[in-house]
Amino acid sequence: MAKAPQNAISPTRAEDFPEWYQQVVRAADLAENSEVRGCMVIKPWGYGLWERIQRQLDAMFKETGHKNAYFPLLIPVSYLEKEATHVEGFATECAVVTHHRLELKDGKMVPSGELTEPYVIRPTSETIIGAAFARWVQSWRDLPLLINQWANVMRWEMRPRLFLRTAEFLWQEGHTAHETPEEAMAETKLMHGVYERFLRDHLAIPAIPGEKTEAERFPGALNTFTVEAMVQDRKAIQAGTSHFLGQNFSKAANIEFESREERREFAWTTSWGVSTRLIGTLIMAHGDDDGVILPPRVAPTQVVILPVTPKPETRDAVIAACRELAAQLRGQSFHGEPVLVEVDERDLGGGVKNWEWIKKGVPVRLEIGPRDLESGNVALARRDRGPKEKEFLPMADAVRSIVATLQSIHDTLLERASAFREANTVEVDSMDALKAFFASETGGGFALAHWAGSAGDEDALAKELKITVRCIPNDPALRGGPGPCIGTGQPAEGRVVFAKAY
Amino acid sequence: MAKAPQNAISPTRAEDFPEWYQQVVRAADLAENSEVRGCMVIKPWGYGLWERIQRQLDAMFKETGHKNAYFPLLIPVSYLEKEATHVEGFATECAVVTHHRLELKDGKMVPSGELTEPYVIRPTSETIIGAAFARWVQSWRDLPLLINQWANVMRWEMRPRLFLRTAEFLWQEGHTAHETPEEAMAETKLMHGVYERFLRDHLAIPAIPGEKTEAERFPGALNTFTVEAMVQDRKAIQAGTSHFLGQNFSKAANIEFESREERREFAWTTSWGVSTRLIGTLIMAHGDDDGVILPPRVAPTQVVILPVTPKPETRDAVIAACRELAAQLRGQSFHGEPVLVEVDERDLGGGVKNWEWIKKGVPVRLEIGPRDLESGNVALARRDRGPKEKEFLPMADAVRSIVATLQSIHDTLLERASAFREANTVEVDSMDALKAFFASETGGGFALAHWAGSAGDEDALAKELKITVRCIPNDPALRGGPGPCIGTGQPAEGRVVFAKAY
Repeated sequence: MAKAPQNAISPTRAEDFPEWYQQVVRAADLAENSEVRGCMVIKPWGYGLWERIQRQLDAMFKETGHKNAYFPLLIPVSYLEKEATHVEGFATECAVVTHHRLELKDGKMVPSGELTEPYVIRPTSETIIGAAFARWVQSWRDLPLLINQWANVMRWEMRPRLFLRTAEFLWQEGHTAHETPEEAMAETKLMHGVYERFLRDHLAIPAIPGEKTEAERFPGALNTFTVEAMVQDRKAIQAGTSHFLGQNFSKAANIEFESREERREFAWTTSWGVSTRLIGTLIMAHGDDDGVILPPRVAPTQVVILPVTPKPETRDAVIAACRELAAQLRGQSFHGEPVLVEVDERDLGGGVKNWEWIKKGVPVRLEIGPRDLESGNVALARRDRGPKEKEFLPMADAVRSIVATLQSIHDTLLERASAFREANTVEVDSMDALKAFFASETGGGFALAHWAGSAGDEDALAKELKITVRCIPNDPALRGGPGPCIGTGQPAEGRVVFAKAY
Repeated sequence: MAKAPQNAISPTRAEDFPEWYQQVVRAADLAENSEVRGCMVIKPWGYGLWERIQRQLDAMFKETGHKNAYFPLLIPVSYLEKEATHVEGFATECAVVTHHRLELKDGKMVPSGELTEPYVIRPTSETIIGAAFARWVQSWRDLPLLINQWANVMRWEMRPRLFLRTAEFLWQEGHTAHETPEEAMAETKLMHGVYERFLRDHLAIPAIPGEKTEAERFPGALNTFTVEAMVQDRKAIQAGTSHFLGQNFSKAANIEFESREERREFAWTTSWGVSTRLIGTLIMAHGDDDGVILPPRVAPTQVVILPVTPKPETRDAVIAACRELAAQLRGQSFHGEPVLVEVDERDLGGGVKNWEWIKKGVPVRLEIGPRDLESGNVALARRDRGPKEKEFLPMADAVRSIVATLQSIHDTLLERASAFREANTVEVDSMDALKAFFASETGGGFALAHWAGSAGDEDALAKELKITVRCIPNDPALRGGPGPCIGTGQPAEGRVVFAKAY
């Protein structure tokens, strides 16, 4: 068998981060490109991760009173035209359905049955869901309407990247309608908080919650709130957004109701979403030079047991011990669910299997060999530590401590990511300092600076330095007190977060 | 308040079954038509039902070794052309994507950015998944490959009907690849059995499992197995199919592997699926003239508690008692899950609320009023009984017996549907008898007859009598012994099921 390499992934993060990312996705068998331009195939390990994310978020949505529903994939082009800002933001690059039939012509299948009005495949569903809400909402008694949809959406991406930017992706989109702007804003902030909590407590990512400036707002929204994560190349990634839409979409779709005062009023709406991009985010936040490191709560397998079977005569006994250990581990409850355990009984070399699971990012690996049968010990390796670091402990202890071990891995990932973010966040008080920070090859990160510039000023910065205002942070400690804008010199209420972004 | 009507649904099943169906779907708030031709909106109550179906089936798929994955929504037209029979079956009516952009032209958004090769929105995914399998399968060690996908699919339907036939629908599609034809056939039959069991044990529907004749086979399959349910207008509905695809699709997609004998061989593949059509099936199988009756295992709410609050001064105490009862009921486990309970605290008339839940088909309704607080009693109504039939029993007994009550409702639904099917199934031994059976206005149903006709003979029957061979039943009791074909007089091995079908 080949000697285990120094690092499983080549190039390393330091050598070439974008290429490292592609190699990590491939090595973990999470997803691959398909023959359909910009569309990915999400492989079982990647989809298993999405299923865990989906189930846990779904429970949080239901706890906050939302119900799931499903709306059409296709949107009449005329719907997009109803909200002026929205159409500019979304209609430019999307898949257009123009025919409803194929016919054989000169030995080739060609489109036929032209539609009188073309459809687009939903890039987002505000317009089509708005049309349904207009039917459902008659009176204030029908409000609030709290709906979520799990769906595929499509935006014709020219430079696709697995999980981060693909033409088709999976997501959830919450859509709600309310009696008053206060209620709608409270809902927007509630879901903003749910996203922050989910990232921290489930994905071990310490995202910065805050509000978008006008330049980065969702097309058609009055306010957009975001959770911005820093990943290991020090760039920001927008991991989830929540929009206060005011009455823009309710006016466009005619979501009108009779108020308590018996007046006709337009509803106040919100929307909010996260997508399979979360998978790209967690890979870049936690991965190391041996592959992905999955946060324990969303790992499809939390513990893998590797039987070490050098001799045929002890194989059955080793396998039996592994299965027995698996059963005991499954009896433990991690955040209300049985621990997810897999016994890898495949007839492959132990080193090959071990490295496969390292690259797949399983939080805990347990090895049992013939000698362990007598001693009753097991070798435990944690994915947040070096690949050769092993702890030998009695099987009963491994079972008893498994929940604490998983939680400790989560905590380590969160602490590491927090320390990394803090180490790469600076306060800058001048445009020169900002430029210097982002100019340095090894530097960059989050720059906190006072800002009172316009959307135009931001566009100029984006062109020159490839940086944008990621958010106006909620946290007063980041925001700080008032000061002069580094761009215009005008008084600014506080600091914003500047960064390069995905 | 209006007096409760004799029946909540008008027309009744006897008066006009198709219109009854539409009214039941509307009254239960399950789904509605959208402005997008043939596409439905699945409303929260309908989607909740689908989520339950999905979760329970998903567990059965995972228990049988399958993993979920996700494949592109769009299929290059050239892929469809690879399997000749398949393209004939599916390419005719499907949504075609021809452009990837919209542009403003003379004040209107028009398609632009024409694609060099058009795509269709998947009507089914054999071809696109086959392309992935060809990459994934190299050696016999990669087999079996056991994959399932939960997805939306689209077939351009000209006469859409909610849940039964819609342009877009939700489904699961299993796709597997195997070393040998025997293994692939065993897989096909395994999933055929899973569907039969799911229908019986989860949906309380006694479907007839059997094999399709050539005329009704999936385009491209060598064998198609089906579970055929009878609904209350005595028609058949194909509720789930499993296909043995032989090497047709593996040859088309080039799914080749090195065998144990070190030869290049094409894999043997299967596919199998059920869809949101299951919801239409259960509505028509179990509904009565007051609306839908949900099988307890898939009901999004299994027990609704209705506080009766005639006087403001006792309202709080009644509500408190209802919540306490709900908590106790949730502590009971029905098929491994907490009983799903909702307290309807809305300020509406008790009659209005009661009828709403009847129409929504919730299995058990519990009423608590001020007098019950003293007596400790509760009024229990079962959806499988008359709307006014109530049983008064101590709250503790209601809690203790809830699981048995839910199971008893399931059993009643299954028995009723079985009795109905048996009462409307006949053996016929001549073409005249077959015609007479389907000619009668009040008759029809399942006719068991010997058959050795060709696909052409079946087409002729379909044209003349609007009946088809639903399946060659697995059950020897239905199949019977050999006999002369009622069409051709040729010897037939056994009987097949003839019926009108959805």
